[in-house]
Amino acid sequence: MRAIVTNGAGGPEVLEVAELPDVQPGPGEVAIDVVATAVNRADTLQRQGFYPPPPGASDVIGLECSGTVAALGEGVTGLEVGQPVCALLAGGGYASRVVVPAPQVMRVPAGIDLVTAAALPEVACTVWSNVFMVAGLQAEETFLVHGGAGGIGTMAIQLAHALGIRVLTTAGSAAKRQLCEDLGATLAIDYREDDFVARTREATQGRGADVILDNMGAKYLPRNVEALATEGRLVIIGMQGGAKGELPIGTLLAKRGAVIATSLRGRPVAGKGTICRAVEEHVWPLVESGAVRAIIDRVLPLEEVRQAHELMDAGGHSGKIVLTL
Amino acid sequence: MRAIVTNGAGGPEVLEVAELPDVQPGPGEVAIDVVATAVNRADTLQRQGFYPPPPGASDVIGLECSGTVAALGEGVTGLEVGQPVCALLAGGGYASRVVVPAPQVMRVPAGIDLVTAAALPEVACTVWSNVFMVAGLQAEETFLVHGGAGGIGTMAIQLAHALGIRVLTTAGSAAKRQLCEDLGATLAIDYREDDFVARTREATQGRGADVILDNMGAKYLPRNVEALATEGRLVIIGMQGGAKGELPIGTLLAKRGAVIATSLRGRPVAGKGTICRAVEEHVWPLVESGAVRAIIDRVLPLEEVRQAHELMDAGGHSGKIVLTL
Repeated sequence: MRAIVTNGAGGPEVLEVAELPDVQPGPGEVAIDVVATAVNRADTLQRQGFYPPPPGASDVIGLECSGTVAALGEGVTGLEVGQPVCALLAGGGYASRVVVPAPQVMRVPAGIDLVTAAALPEVACTVWSNVFMVAGLQAEETFLVHGGAGGIGTMAIQLAHALGIRVLTTAGSAAKRQLCEDLGATLAIDYREDDFVARTREATQGRGADVILDNMGAKYLPRNVEALATEGRLVIIGMQGGAKGELPIGTLLAKRGAVIATSLRGRPVAGKGTICRAVEEHVWPLVESGAVRAIIDRVLPLEEVRQAHELMDAGGHSGKIVLTL
Repeated sequence: MRAIVTNGAGGPEVLEVAELPDVQPGPGEVAIDVVATAVNRADTLQRQGFYPPPPGASDVIGLECSGTVAALGEGVTGLEVGQPVCALLAGGGYASRVVVPAPQVMRVPAGIDLVTAAALPEVACTVWSNVFMVAGLQAEETFLVHGGAGGIGTMAIQLAHALGIRVLTTAGSAAKRQLCEDLGATLAIDYREDDFVARTREATQGRGADVILDNMGAKYLPRNVEALATEGRLVIIGMQGGAKGELPIGTLLAKRGAVIATSLRGRPVAGKGTICRAVEEHVWPLVESGAVRAIIDRVLPLEEVRQAHELMDAGGHSGKIVLTL
């Protein structure tokens, strides 16, 4: 099979196309002939050596894919060879074939082509699990998502908006803020020029945000707690602003607030399966109705993976960067 | 009515006995002729000027009491004048009469005298709400409670043990550790000599504690996160070790853990009412069966409130200090 391998750890230049032996499905696993995969922030960390794959996962980068079922391991039921699918992976997506535990395989939303479908698993599973299953965001609440123009941000804005929830977001350029508002955000805050705590308070009559989805970690921790409403929940899913932050415990206590830090990749297969079933049930119908769209910055062939990573590192993109095979 | 007032902010010497006008119940409120009240850590903070009463609450210190119903405000049903009760207060307990919203009045567990009943509301409501309602401690999990020999600690150990949960705790003297083990703790860790993270890991085959109830705040924050199990919940209800702490976000994220900081006093009346009903349903039967006892260090007359606060400040006591009228 064709796959992207890393020649050491470093910048996009360490990514190389290689020929590897075909992977084979073990018991309970499914082999997928990959049509497309997509680039995640975590991929660039793995490339730099900061985010090793969990035990048992492929060394090949890539956390999601779309394609067709190539083979079924022992005991797998409910899927057929040749069936179009998409999947949440612990790794291995940057390849022409990947093996994945069956619970992490999802049906493709009706009317969605396979290239587009590759942009959906990570963002849909991340947003649904963290914002709705973990933080329990409710219809009458206010939701603040940082980095609204990214892959996760664009999904988070659309999903919450489709469910009738008021969404505030942050983004770094006028074009990105416009995109966020087009997708349903009530307010897109310029985090470079503006104080997101003050703007969040203004937009909520001083209450603050009930749920905050954060990818910055330490850098935003004290301000995120300031921006929380009473009984608010801060969910940290990225640490682009550092891994050790100051927690204002007194402020959090007065609000009876919660800080939850979590990741999708390290969850056990059963937990990922639960999330995938919830996404098929709750998110795919909104994709099928057009209420939620995959926001794709561009589609590149797998061989241009270095360019894809350069774009991700530069941060100028909006939505997902997809790689096709 | 007779009440304790504060002459400025400071040490126990600012506490004075005074005669104040009788309080009268407003709509939805109940007046109680107080038989006994109890001293909480928060009382000593309020005495020092660090913990002002929430808006609308009495300036008189005192977060719990037992007594008999003296008068019912407009619209209060289900209670009768003369009935023995105990209550969770937002303030006002150090007095011969107190007024409280009706939802915060609880029945006295059968077979429990009123002096003993004064030691129960704060610890029962704090432990049940935080450990079971907020953190969702489950039967097969491991629970670590800091300060196991205090009022909250002794209730937490007994309640969790009565529900079949394995309890680890910390305490500062051999006598306190013996008390904790007598109450049902599997392991009482000497926090002065021993590393509670290492001991918690040893006792859980490396897993860590599923729920930690903490009264130290900043000082213990990084170590509490280290001691958490995967998907563990740290509930901070006190800040005796400081109000701003370093949060190891990376460690928390790898564990998919939650840090919740909360307090009982600031909750709205309806929320306190929900907690009081849950305590009557889940905790009082265990008190009635003898599985959970009020652990009382000593009983003093209200006039000796200065001595009671000196004992609380010194920290040598085990369980509750009760004041009688």
